[in-house]
Amino acid sequence: MEVIAKWQGGRAFEAKGPSGYPMYMDATPNYGGEGNAPTPTEMLLSSLAGCIGIDVTMILKPHLDKIESIEIKVDGSRREELPTAFTAASLLFDVRGDIDAKKVVRAIKLGEEKYCAVSASLKAEIAYRLILNGNEIEV
Amino acid sequence: MEVIAKWQGGRAFEAKGPSGYPMYMDATPNYGGEGNAPTPTEMLLSSLAGCIGIDVTMILKPHLDKIESIEIKVDGSRREELPTAFTAASLLFDVRGDIDAKKVVRAIKLGEEKYCAVSASLKAEIAYRLILNGNEIEV
Repeated sequence: MEVIAKWQGGRAFEAKGPSGYPMYMDATPNYGGEGNAPTPTEMLLSSLAGCIGIDVTMILKPHLDKIESIEIKVDGSRREELPTAFTAASLLFDVRGDIDAKKVVRAIKLGEEKYCAVSASLKAEIAYRLILNGNEIEV
Repeated sequence: MEVIAKWQGGRAFEAKGPSGYPMYMDATPNYGGEGNAPTPTEMLLSSLAGCIGIDVTMILKPHLDKIESIEIKVDGSRREELPTAFTAASLLFDVRGDIDAKKVVRAIKLGEEKYCAVSASLKAEIAYRLILNGNEIEV
């Protein structure tokens, strides 16, 4: 897979991959940027959430009409020393809908173990939690 | 760092991190999506390019007015088996401007070794090349 990023002046970059959609990035003002776009590290955590989210919706496809909402909160922990790499990521799935907890747990586990290319690309330890209709379910 | 991704129906997600800018993701039609936004894996490679790009422009700040263009091409290699994690990424910097090659080489090396949180977060082997004003320079 090929992605090309072009410098836009300052600390801003525009990247494009196979989809052709532009992805803008900028540094925050304390790193010399204008803060006009997401930072690359935000984008990294987003790609993790989106990847596992897409896999979970793919696995739950026959039941998607019963799911009202899926929210995935990613909390990434970083090294204090440079480079401030992510060492751990905690993913909290907040799901609402008329669906069996076992099916959602299975989808998260299968997504993580078998499908999610982004989580498998990261060094960080990744942990999963599920809250289904307000109740924490063991994953 | 916290990022929250919300399901938008189908395979689409909208993620937001500390900057507050929305990052949209979707699967391609062959993975059941609508192809209406970048895929998470494109976003992962973009974050790598943007991270090292921002670091390089930060290090080269005193010379940025002499740089006409910076393009970073990322070529990511993936496992054939599931999960199709990235095993390697080759980054080609294509830089144009009236700048000493040694300064650009130093910026790439320093960015990689000291600053780039995204490359330090990835399992993939990362290789760097530089083409300065049309000529390949050893990094």
